[in-house]
Amino acid sequence: MNKSFKKIGVMTSGGDSPGMNAAIRAVVRTCAYHQVQCLGIYRGYQGLIEGDFKEMTPRSVNNIINKGGTVLKSARSQEFRTVEGRKKAYEQVKASGMEALVVIGGDGSFTGGMVFNEEFDFPVMGIPGTIDNDIYGTQFTLGYDTALNTVVDAIDKIRDTASSHNRLFFVEVMGRDVGHIALNAGIGAGAEEILIPEEDMGKDRLVESLKRSRKNGKSSSIVVIAEGDTTGENVFDLKDYVLQNMPEYEVRVSVLGHMQRGGTPSCFDRVLASRMGVKAVESLLEGKTNYMVGIQNNKMALCPLDKAVKGKTEIDTELLRVSDIVTI
Amino acid sequence: MNKSFKKIGVMTSGGDSPGMNAAIRAVVRTCAYHQVQCLGIYRGYQGLIEGDFKEMTPRSVNNIINKGGTVLKSARSQEFRTVEGRKKAYEQVKASGMEALVVIGGDGSFTGGMVFNEEFDFPVMGIPGTIDNDIYGTQFTLGYDTALNTVVDAIDKIRDTASSHNRLFFVEVMGRDVGHIALNAGIGAGAEEILIPEEDMGKDRLVESLKRSRKNGKSSSIVVIAEGDTTGENVFDLKDYVLQNMPEYEVRVSVLGHMQRGGTPSCFDRVLASRMGVKAVESLLEGKTNYMVGIQNNKMALCPLDKAVKGKTEIDTELLRVSDIVTI
Amino acid sequence: MNKSFKKIGVMTSGGDSPGMNAAIRAVVRTCAYHQVQCLGIYRGYQGLIEGDFKEMTPRSVNNIINKGGTVLKSARSQEFRTVEGRKKAYEQVKASGMEALVVIGGDGSFTGGMVFNEEFDFPVMGIPGTIDNDIYGTQFTLGYDTALNTVVDAIDKIRDTASSHNRLFFVEVMGRDVGHIALNAGIGAGAEEILIPEEDMGKDRLVESLKRSRKNGKSSSIVVIAEGDTTGENVFDLKDYVLQNMPEYEVRVSVLGHMQRGGTPSCFDRVLASRMGVKAVESLLEGKTNYMVGIQNNKMALCPLDKAVKGKTEIDTELLRVSDIVTI
Amino acid sequence: MNKSFKKIGVMTSGGDSPGMNAAIRAVVRTCAYHQVQCLGIYRGYQGLIEGDFKEMTPRSVNNIINKGGTVLKSARSQEFRTVEGRKKAYEQVKASGMEALVVIGGDGSFTGGMVFNEEFDFPVMGIPGTIDNDIYGTQFTLGYDTALNTVVDAIDKIRDTASSHNRLFFVEVMGRDVGHIALNAGIGAGAEEILIPEEDMGKDRLVESLKRSRKNGKSSSIVVIAEGDTTGENVFDLKDYVLQNMPEYEVRVSVLGHMQRGGTPSCFDRVLASRMGVKAVESLLEGKTNYMVGIQNNKMALCPLDKAVKGKTEIDTELLRVSDIVTI
Repeated sequence: MNKSFKKIGVMTSGGDSPGMNAAIRAVVRTCAYHQVQCLGIYRGYQGLIEGDFKEMTPRSVNNIINKGGTVLKSARSQEFRTVEGRKKAYEQVKASGMEALVVIGGDGSFTGGMVFNEEFDFPVMGIPGTIDNDIYGTQFTLGYDTALNTVVDAIDKIRDTASSHNRLFFVEVMGRDVGHIALNAGIGAGAEEILIPEEDMGKDRLVESLKRSRKNGKSSSIVVIAEGDTTGENVFDLKDYVLQNMPEYEVRVSVLGHMQRGGTPSCFDRVLASRMGVKAVESLLEGKTNYMVGIQNNKMALCPLDKAVKGKTEIDTELLRVSDIVTI
Repeated sequence: MNKSFKKIGVMTSGGDSPGMNAAIRAVVRTCAYHQVQCLGIYRGYQGLIEGDFKEMTPRSVNNIINKGGTVLKSARSQEFRTVEGRKKAYEQVKASGMEALVVIGGDGSFTGGMVFNEEFDFPVMGIPGTIDNDIYGTQFTLGYDTALNTVVDAIDKIRDTASSHNRLFFVEVMGRDVGHIALNAGIGAGAEEILIPEEDMGKDRLVESLKRSRKNGKSSSIVVIAEGDTTGENVFDLKDYVLQNMPEYEVRVSVLGHMQRGGTPSCFDRVLASRMGVKAVESLLEGKTNYMVGIQNNKMALCPLDKAVKGKTEIDTELLRVSDIVTI
Repeated sequence: MNKSFKKIGVMTSGGDSPGMNAAIRAVVRTCAYHQVQCLGIYRGYQGLIEGDFKEMTPRSVNNIINKGGTVLKSARSQEFRTVEGRKKAYEQVKASGMEALVVIGGDGSFTGGMVFNEEFDFPVMGIPGTIDNDIYGTQFTLGYDTALNTVVDAIDKIRDTASSHNRLFFVEVMGRDVGHIALNAGIGAGAEEILIPEEDMGKDRLVESLKRSRKNGKSSSIVVIAEGDTTGENVFDLKDYVLQNMPEYEVRVSVLGHMQRGGTPSCFDRVLASRMGVKAVESLLEGKTNYMVGIQNNKMALCPLDKAVKGKTEIDTELLRVSDIVTI
Repeated sequence: MNKSFKKIGVMTSGGDSPGMNAAIRAVVRTCAYHQVQCLGIYRGYQGLIEGDFKEMTPRSVNNIINKGGTVLKSARSQEFRTVEGRKKAYEQVKASGMEALVVIGGDGSFTGGMVFNEEFDFPVMGIPGTIDNDIYGTQFTLGYDTALNTVVDAIDKIRDTASSHNRLFFVEVMGRDVGHIALNAGIGAGAEEILIPEEDMGKDRLVESLKRSRKNGKSSSIVVIAEGDTTGENVFDLKDYVLQNMPEYEVRVSVLGHMQRGGTPSCFDRVLASRMGVKAVESLLEGKTNYMVGIQNNKMALCPLDKAVKGKTEIDTELLRVSDIVTI
C-alpha cells in the first residue's frame, strides 16, 4: 500500500441492489484492517453535498451482510449535477477530512464520481451495484445473481399452477435497456418464450411460436418479458394482442416490479461484494483512482470508470441458442 | 367404519392451491390404510365425464407432499354443468366401480359435487382447496397459509428497496370478492394501507392517509390492494390518481398474479391437508355424505356442503383494528 | 381503557423465537396509539436490573416486523432470581417512570414476571414467545409456525437426495420436553418415523418399523427425532444401533440446531405477534395484570400467568394417528 | 455436427446435486433438437448393467428443471468395477442401440466412463454434477452454487439467534477433502472462523482467535467447519475442547448434512446445467469423446476426462485473505 489515507468515504447511489450492504461492510472493515477511518455517506451524492456523514467501525456493520437494501440509503441528487452542488460536496469532503471515495452504484453514479474526480482531483473507486448486469468491465454486477433467483422462484410458483390446459402466463421482469435478467431467468425458469430489448421478436412471431409450442404438446406456456421489450407497448397490450389471436387461451399477467431489487443476497453476491469491497479500498491505497472494481474470469479486475460508463454489455448469443434448444 | 366401500375416487377441481397434492396423498393412503382402492380422477369433473381414471397406491403418491400444483391436474368443465354431462360421468363412475368421491376444490367444485350427489345419490365429500380462505365452515382453506407467506415474502423484498425517500409501492394481490389475503398479508408485511373489497376506502381517503403517513415520518409506504377492491378501476388507474395528488412521489406497481397459487406448501398447509384427507375418507367410511371437511378451533369438523357453498366468510374486524394500530 | 399508564416497558427474555420483533413493534405502536410512552428494556431481566432502557417510538421499530431474533436482545439473569436483584430492578423501574411491563418469552420468563408482580404489585403481561409451542393457555406460541417451516424446508432438501436406495436419514429437531415440532414438522415433511419425548417407541420397534417400511416398497426413510426423545442416548448412538441391525443401509444424520430459532417469521407468526402485542398493551390499560395473552379458536384470550406456567400442553393424539396413516 | 448418432444415453451417478435434473432435461431436448433419440438410464452404472433404460422425449422432462435430486435416480455399482459387469453393460448398450453416453456425476463416475470408453471404444461425455466444486477443468460444478445458498441461509437463521452474549455456534458443512463450500459459504455468512481441510488451523489457534474476536467486541461467533477439517476429530470433540478453554461460553452445534445436496437449484445452476447439457450432446455429435464439459471464464469448455479426474482444484488464497479482512 503506497498511499496513506486517513479517511475514506463510502456511499450507495442509484437504485438498490442486493449485496450493497455486504459491500459497505467489506469497505468499512478493509479500512479498519489498514487503520484507515471510514465515513459512511448517507443518501448518495445528496448526502455528500449535505455532509450527511457518520463514522463507521467494524462493529457498526455487524449483521448487515445478509440484508437487502442499503443501510446508507440512496437518493437521486439533481444538485450534484450542478457545479455549485459539487463544490458544496467538495467543501463537505474537505471539512470532514475524507481523502477518497468508494461509490457503490451503476452508470449514473459512476459518471458523478468521474466528474467529481476531474474537477477536484479527488480519488474515486466504483463498485458496480445494480441488478441489471449492464456495466461494462465486470462479468457480474452486485445483485444480479440474487435478482435471477427471485425471478426464477416467482416463475416456479407460477408454473406450479400451470396444471390446467390452455394457459399462458406473461411475466414482466426488469430490464429497460438490457435483457440479461429476462434471458437468464427465462432459461432458468424454463420459459417457453423470452422477449428482450436486444431482439425484436414481433407480436406475430410470438403468436406463431406459442402455437407451435402447443402443437409440440405443451399444455401451457410461460412468456418472460423484459420491461424494455418493444414487441408490445406494454405487457397488458401484448396480452390483449395474443388473446385476439389465440382466444381459446386464458392469459395471466404478473408484473414482478421492485421485489427484484430487494431480498437477502445470494451467497454469490455476498462473496462478490466482500471481494469487491476489499479490492476497492486496497486499490485506493495503492494509489489507483477513477476505476471500477469488476470480476473477470473469477478474479478481481479494475476497469477505468469512463470505459465502465461508456462500454456496452452484450447478450450472449450462446444463451439465446441454448434457450431455443432446451424449450423444444 | 360402518361402510365398506371398495373404491373411492379423488379429484382436484377449480384453481390450484398449495397443499392439494398433500391432500391427494392423504386420501390415497387413508384408503389403503382401510383396504379401500383409490382412483385418481384427472382434470376434475371433465375427467370424471371422460373416465380419465388411474388407480393410485401409497407408492404412487411418494414425494408429492411438498409439491405445489396438483398431480391430478385441474380443469373447468362446461359439460358437467349439463344433465347429459353428469349422466356420462355417472356411467363412467359405475363402470369403474367407484362408490364415493372426494372433491378437493372451492365453491364451484362443491356445487358440482352436491348436484351429482342429489341426482345419483352418490356419496361425496369435499376438502376446501383454495388460497382465498373464503369457504364457510372452515377457519382455514388449503393453500391460504402458503399464499400469505408468498405475498409477505414478495413485499419484504419490495420494502428492502424502500430506502429512498418519497416512494409508494402498490402491490396487487388475489381476492376478487374477499380481502383475507390482502388483510392478513398486509398486516404481516407491515403495509401502511390495505384495500379490500369489504371496505370501500375511496381514493381520496387513501391519498389523505398516505399524506398523514408521511407527516408521521414514514419516508415510503406500501399499499396492498386486493384484486376486487373497488377504490380504483384497477391498480394502474389508482396509481395514476394518487400520482396526480402526490406528484412528488415515485409510485411503483407489482402485480403478483398466479405466483400466489403455487409454491411449496407451508407446514401448516401440509398438516392441514393430511388431516383433512384422513378425515374425508374416514367420514365417507362412516356413512357420511355431502359434507365438507373443515378445521374449527384446531379440530377437524364437518360442514354440510350446501352451507359451505352458501355461507359467507367475514373479515375479522379485530384485524382491521390491529392493522390501523400497528402501522401508526 | 380504564387505566392511564404514562409509561410501559417491553422486554424479550429467554431463547429467541421468530416473531419477537413483530411483537415488540406491536407493543411500541399500541402504546403510541394510546398516547403511552414505551421503554425498550435490553437483555431481559438483566437489563431491568441494570436500567438498560431506551425510549421507543413508532419510528424506532420501522422495518423490524420481518426480522428474526430480537432487537432488544435477550439474556439469562441469575441476579433476578435473588431478592436483591429484583429490588434493584424495581428501583430502576421506579426511577424510569415505568408503570407496567410486557414480557415476551417462555415459562421461565413468565415465572420471573409473576414473582416481580407479587413482590412489588407491578402490572405484568406476558406474550408467549418460544418455538416449542409448549405454553398452556395458547394454541400457538410465537415462532412455532416459522420453526415448523424451517424444519420442513430442511427435510424437503434431504428428501430430494433420497433417490438412492437403502438410505436412512435421521434429523434431530428441537424439543427437549415436548414433541410438537417433531410431530407436526414430521407429518409436514412426510417423515416415516417420528420420535417424541411423549411416546417411548424403543429402539427395537424403530428398527422393526423401518424394516416394515422397506417391505412396503419405500427405498429410503426419514426419521425425525426430538432432542428430548429417550429412545437412544443421542441421535448418533441411535444411528449406530440401527446400523447394527440394518447393515445394508447408509444412515445420514442432520442436527438442525439453532437455525430453528431464527429466520424471517412466517405471515402467521407476524399476524399473531401483531395481535398479541395490541392485546397485551390494551389489557394492561384495561387494568388487567398477571396474565398471558394467548390465541384460542382464532381469538385473542387471556390466561393467568400461573396457569400458563404450570399447565402442560399435550400432544394431539389425532396427529399421531394421522402420521401413522399417511406414511403407510 | 459430423457424427450421426441415432441414440444417446444419459445417466446420473454418485451423490445427488441440485441441477442434475436440469442437465438431464437439456440433454434430452438437445438430442430431440438434433433428431437423436435419448435413453434415460436409471440408477447410474448399475442400471447400465441391468438395461434399466427408458426412452425420453422433450415432454418426459417437463417441469423438472426446478427439482432437486435426479429423476433418473442414482446408485453405486460394485459390479461395474468388474470386467464382467462392464461387459454386461456393453451388451445392454449394444442391444438398446445406444451409441454414446452422457454421464452426470463426479470423479468416480467419470473414472467409470473412461474405463468403459477404453474397453469398448464407446463415446462418453461427462457433466460435472457435485456440490463440492472439486472437479478440475471447470470453475463451477453443478449444485455448488445452490449448496452455498443452502448453507448461508441456514447460518443466517442461526445468526438471528445470536442476540445473547457469549454464544458460539459451530456449523459443520460438507467437504471431506476440499473446503470450497466452507470457505465461500463462510464468507457469505460472515462466519468469524472457517476451518477447511486445506489449512490446519489447530485447536489452540482457534481458541485464541475466538478470544480475540471477543476482545474486538463481538458478542457471539459462528465457526464453519468442513467435514474434512482435521482440527478436531469431529465437530462435537472440537466443541468440547473449546468449552474447556472458554467455559463462559455456550456452544451450540449444527450438522447440516444432506440438506446441502438437495433443494431447488439456483438460477445459476439451472442455466449452467442447460448450457452443459447442450454442449455435452453437441460435442458428442461433433465426434468428441472422453471429455468433460466445464465452464471457464463464463464460456463452455471441454476438459479431457482423465485430467478432470486427476487434477486438483485449489482453494483461492485471495478468498482466505478476504475472509480474514471482512471478519475483523
